[in-house]
Amino acid sequence: LNKSQHKSIVLIGSGNVATQLGLALLEAGYNILQVYSRTKKSANKLATLLKATATDSVEKINTIADIYIIAVKDDAIANVTNQLKLKDKITVHTSGSIDMKILKNTSKNYGVFYPLQTFSKNKKTDFKNIPICLEGSNTDTLKVLRSLADSISNNVQKVNSEQRKQIHLAAVFACNFTNHFYTIAENILHEQKLSFDILKPLIIETADKIKENSPSRMQTGPAIRKDKRVIQTHMIQTHMKLLRSKKLKQLYKLISENIIDSTKNNK
Amino acid sequence: LNKSQHKSIVLIGSGNVATQLGLALLEAGYNILQVYSRTKKSANKLATLLKATATDSVEKINTIADIYIIAVKDDAIANVTNQLKLKDKITVHTSGSIDMKILKNTSKNYGVFYPLQTFSKNKKTDFKNIPICLEGSNTDTLKVLRSLADSISNNVQKVNSEQRKQIHLAAVFACNFTNHFYTIAENILHEQKLSFDILKPLIIETADKIKENSPSRMQTGPAIRKDKRVIQTHMIQTHMKLLRSKKLKQLYKLISENIIDSTKNNK
Repeated sequence: LNKSQHKSIVLIGSGNVATQLGLALLEAGYNILQVYSRTKKSANKLATLLKATATDSVEKINTIADIYIIAVKDDAIANVTNQLKLKDKITVHTSGSIDMKILKNTSKNYGVFYPLQTFSKNKKTDFKNIPICLEGSNTDTLKVLRSLADSISNNVQKVNSEQRKQIHLAAVFACNFTNHFYTIAENILHEQKLSFDILKPLIIETADKIKENSPSRMQTGPAIRKDKRVIQTHMIQTHMKLLRSKKLKQLYKLISENIIDSTKNNK
Repeated sequence: LNKSQHKSIVLIGSGNVATQLGLALLEAGYNILQVYSRTKKSANKLATLLKATATDSVEKINTIADIYIIAVKDDAIANVTNQLKLKDKITVHTSGSIDMKILKNTSKNYGVFYPLQTFSKNKKTDFKNIPICLEGSNTDTLKVLRSLADSISNNVQKVNSEQRKQIHLAAVFACNFTNHFYTIAENILHEQKLSFDILKPLIIETADKIKENSPSRMQTGPAIRKDKRVIQTHMIQTHMKLLRSKKLKQLYKLISENIIDSTKNNK
């Protein structure tokens, strides 16, 4: 056992991130002392899983742990940190977009512990390959965070605030917006009484291709071949007619233009 | 060996679809007689792989095979079909968007053989789980096409023209547009001197989630929580500031609005 495995943790939050992170840290040998959640039921449920005590009151969060991990929704972080006074304990949040400084009145030693992944409640996350982006208010804090992160992931990176925000922005395109397109595709199929299943192999393969190739070199489809502008315009017009909502037409047009533009710049 | 495995095939095209389809059909026991490509070199290369003869002249395409598969780019199909006269042979194209009727002057028995996947030249495709969408000008043709498709895939579906066009449109969102977002994400990271590798586990997991869950139920991120409109607006504004190009700002705004709208309708 290395020293860090004796460190004790309080987990603030009981959502997907808190659940998966808690499970991984427990497995790595950390002692989870307490779980806080707004709702008693959720706090109890996760605490049982993590062999910890539970509370639904910020005031009752103990002050005897080594590390405090705030894994609540972005818009709830301020509310928690405003009530927490932890002196020289290490306090981190797990958000990609919230400023590290939001923790500066909570503790002297603070940082960010941002796992770059989308989490599910009911599917256990394997953290081994998940990038964890770290920031720390000082070298000692960063050292503890790195040891914490290294214990569950082989892909730990120190990033600065600007980088983390840009990573989060990139993740919004690669995850949230992409998922929205899956939804649009699903809706188009359901209108035809077709199952979304038909698209699944394509979606998986499209994602899989980026493992080996830069996506900028993989672009295909109606908006890519600039030497065939007439055909391309014809295809775009056909699709525009097929789309029923004005908003989707607008979206289709804008993305096609974007792809054409980026092709122009690349080739 | 079943009867269809004795049928002979001419493959028109030498791109990714032609290559992967040819390899799969050869493996399934079909006899590939000839490969046509605009360029002699590509025709020869694929023909060698498929133990077939090669030609770069449409006029020299033989007329003794049972099935002719036109797997060229959408905008090249008309050029080929205008020159081909195949009487009662079975002729298909492999496009998701081109009308089946484009083949009606080429042969009496025609159809569509549309494999719904993105193909790579250098990565062998396993057709087993790839949906193949079939259309046929008559029952007998459809029967032969079904036997052909069944020999390589467990996911063969008869679809009508309208359905096929909508499937192709859905595929443009799920594959081409999604890949464009991967590219945008890659560009954002490269501007920060960060490797695109950091996003790969997220991209894979986001795609993987749709195997088990409808993407409409998986939507997360800044544009989803309508009960938190103030925070949400703040996040969107932050991201808008981070984005450098006017076009990307426009795209970000439009997609966020779309996600907010679709959430309103769903919940």
